[in-house]
Amino acid sequence: MSTQIHPLTSAKGGEAGETHTFPADKPLTLDSGERLAPLTIAWKTFGTLNADRSNAFLICHALTGDQYVAGTHPVTGKPGWWSSMVGPGLPIDTNRFFVICANVIGGCLGSSGPMSTNPETGSQYGLSFPVITVRDMVRAQAMLLDHLGIETLFCVAGGSMGGMHVLQWAASYPERVFAALPIATAARHSAQNIAFHEVGRQAIMADPEWNGGDYAAKGTNPRKGLAVARMAAHITYLSEAALHRKFGRNLQDRAALSYKFDADFQVESYLRHQGMTFVDRFDANSYLYITRAMDYFDLAADFGGVLAQAFKGAKTRFCVVSFTSDWLFPTVEGKKIVHALNAAGANVSFVEFETDKGHDAFLLDVPEMFQTLRGFIDAAAVARGIGSKR
Amino acid sequence: MSTQIHPLTSAKGGEAGETHTFPADKPLTLDSGERLAPLTIAWKTFGTLNADRSNAFLICHALTGDQYVAGTHPVTGKPGWWSSMVGPGLPIDTNRFFVICANVIGGCLGSSGPMSTNPETGSQYGLSFPVITVRDMVRAQAMLLDHLGIETLFCVAGGSMGGMHVLQWAASYPERVFAALPIATAARHSAQNIAFHEVGRQAIMADPEWNGGDYAAKGTNPRKGLAVARMAAHITYLSEAALHRKFGRNLQDRAALSYKFDADFQVESYLRHQGMTFVDRFDANSYLYITRAMDYFDLAADFGGVLAQAFKGAKTRFCVVSFTSDWLFPTVEGKKIVHALNAAGANVSFVEFETDKGHDAFLLDVPEMFQTLRGFIDAAAVARGIGSKR
Repeated sequence: MSTQIHPLTSAKGGEAGETHTFPADKPLTLDSGERLAPLTIAWKTFGTLNADRSNAFLICHALTGDQYVAGTHPVTGKPGWWSSMVGPGLPIDTNRFFVICANVIGGCLGSSGPMSTNPETGSQYGLSFPVITVRDMVRAQAMLLDHLGIETLFCVAGGSMGGMHVLQWAASYPERVFAALPIATAARHSAQNIAFHEVGRQAIMADPEWNGGDYAAKGTNPRKGLAVARMAAHITYLSEAALHRKFGRNLQDRAALSYKFDADFQVESYLRHQGMTFVDRFDANSYLYITRAMDYFDLAADFGGVLAQAFKGAKTRFCVVSFTSDWLFPTVEGKKIVHALNAAGANVSFVEFETDKGHDAFLLDVPEMFQTLRGFIDAAAVARGIGSKR
Repeated sequence: MSTQIHPLTSAKGGEAGETHTFPADKPLTLDSGERLAPLTIAWKTFGTLNADRSNAFLICHALTGDQYVAGTHPVTGKPGWWSSMVGPGLPIDTNRFFVICANVIGGCLGSSGPMSTNPETGSQYGLSFPVITVRDMVRAQAMLLDHLGIETLFCVAGGSMGGMHVLQWAASYPERVFAALPIATAARHSAQNIAFHEVGRQAIMADPEWNGGDYAAKGTNPRKGLAVARMAAHITYLSEAALHRKFGRNLQDRAALSYKFDADFQVESYLRHQGMTFVDRFDANSYLYITRAMDYFDLAADFGGVLAQAFKGAKTRFCVVSFTSDWLFPTVEGKKIVHALNAAGANVSFVEFETDKGHDAFLLDVPEMFQTLRGFIDAAAVARGIGSKR
């Protein structure tokens, strides 16, 4: 394992964003058997790596997330997607930890993905980009850590697909992970979740502007298809109770039904807005690749079908988190992870939070979650000998 | 109320299919204030109307259903959608009852809908067809019954949107309904259900072959958009448990992942098939109109927001049915109907069936349901004085 000290990250405080391209002779070998080279990874850091390099905190993003976990998002101008969790004095305290968040491979914000240039053709990869897996994404993250000279992570945390990365990290590189925080996730993608992803993919592919994935060359953009995919997915991120509480059957800017196909109801208007704004910051082919990676995720499959084997001998301390109203990654999936960790004799705690906010609860203001995660992280930091810088 | 004896239906046994066009001077006045004329209704009957016209059994179909409740569907060649329930000796016994099932207005199998000819233009209505409501659909059904010379229905039954019709019948024409069987339904459409419908509509409208609804004139057909709409909806008709039981993560006709965007998983292949076969038998504009009607449904809204008022003084005997794994019309919605009926002092029984088959359970083989519905119907028939013809 590389332990070189990368000049860009030594003793740097505050916020930084970097991109590194590994040369063609350092390819990423993929589960498909293909090799991805050159490999580019884009990432952000927050805080300062301490002298003994023990305070690195990797955050893994969800399907439509990116490396802008805190700070300001360069495309939307909005706060990073976990600004409530990551920052000075927050549960993931950037005064104390060196936070790293990298765009997944297959993504569209700087890391190698279908929008990257295919070195063999000189044009965008499009669908010639190889199909990747969650394990491939994690392999790329490990290459980044090698590049940064970080041998061991104090903690890996993430929700949804990010939680899959956390589990894969613990399974693939147990000695490199001191603490792990998989949130609102599962050790394998369910049939229903695959089904919803397939609807999204078909919506994109049905858009003639998708052009077989070659829309960049054709000067088109499957915005409508991607918006429909986002709308369908967005429903699954919320709960029926939250939709009822937020919108119910309230009408949008009108006193009576229109008897037309306008967005009469607030929930329609909200969904259309979600679809339309999403396409400004996301690439349709990336959506195909990343949903596919999630569908392929089945951690136990690499261990003879026995999930506990994935965590055999694990010294990592785990905190598994779920939410009562999350029907995309319900508590039963979190419990399966916990059972496997217990069977493997691992150090694990499990918390289910009562909320009507659905799957997206992990991104939202759930005070009990902040308190619990702060407790878990602080205790792990003490065990790891990381002092407070507050 | 008309009580004329229509020659086509007097003393007819077996199965029959009819279409009637009401003349332009007998328009259907819609909730929107518009008038639909001429109005055409297409329907099927099974069994024989008895001498005192007391054995008429109206079955109301769901969103993508039609009048082919039994017998053979003329487009698909498959058995009617409720062949397990409707037929000689079955719970809805065609030896005993005169079963009527009419295509809803807005539909695409013979009743007036967006595929009909707009008399003002001589071309297909397309989006110039007026937006209709569940109450409008039921008004049209009542006109059909007048036309058939049937004053009182022995029973009205239906699942999903058909259950909405049942509730609307009981509220609009209480004196015409002896027994009512609303199944897997709700007295108003939820925010989540509106959201899923809006995804379907946007998928259709995103298809350039939709052409603003004018695809008939343009010689196009938004098959891809309609297929995506169907795929998304189809997931909501099943349960996570049923999808897991039927498909799990099983691969389709292959031993290993393809690392492509083919339908690797059986659940993907199944969904694609559902989408592709649906477009052969359904019209995209009809899908827009009928989903809109369901979204608009809020029975209490017509009664000062108090659902019980809708059933005030009801003499109809009700049996409300729900299924444990139905997350589209969950049991809590059925219970709201029951509470309102109880508050109105109505005669109501309530049954929740334990099944993992989801919303579609009402169409499937659930023996306990058959047994219970047979019991309710037989008891009501005795009370109505309808003899057995078996």
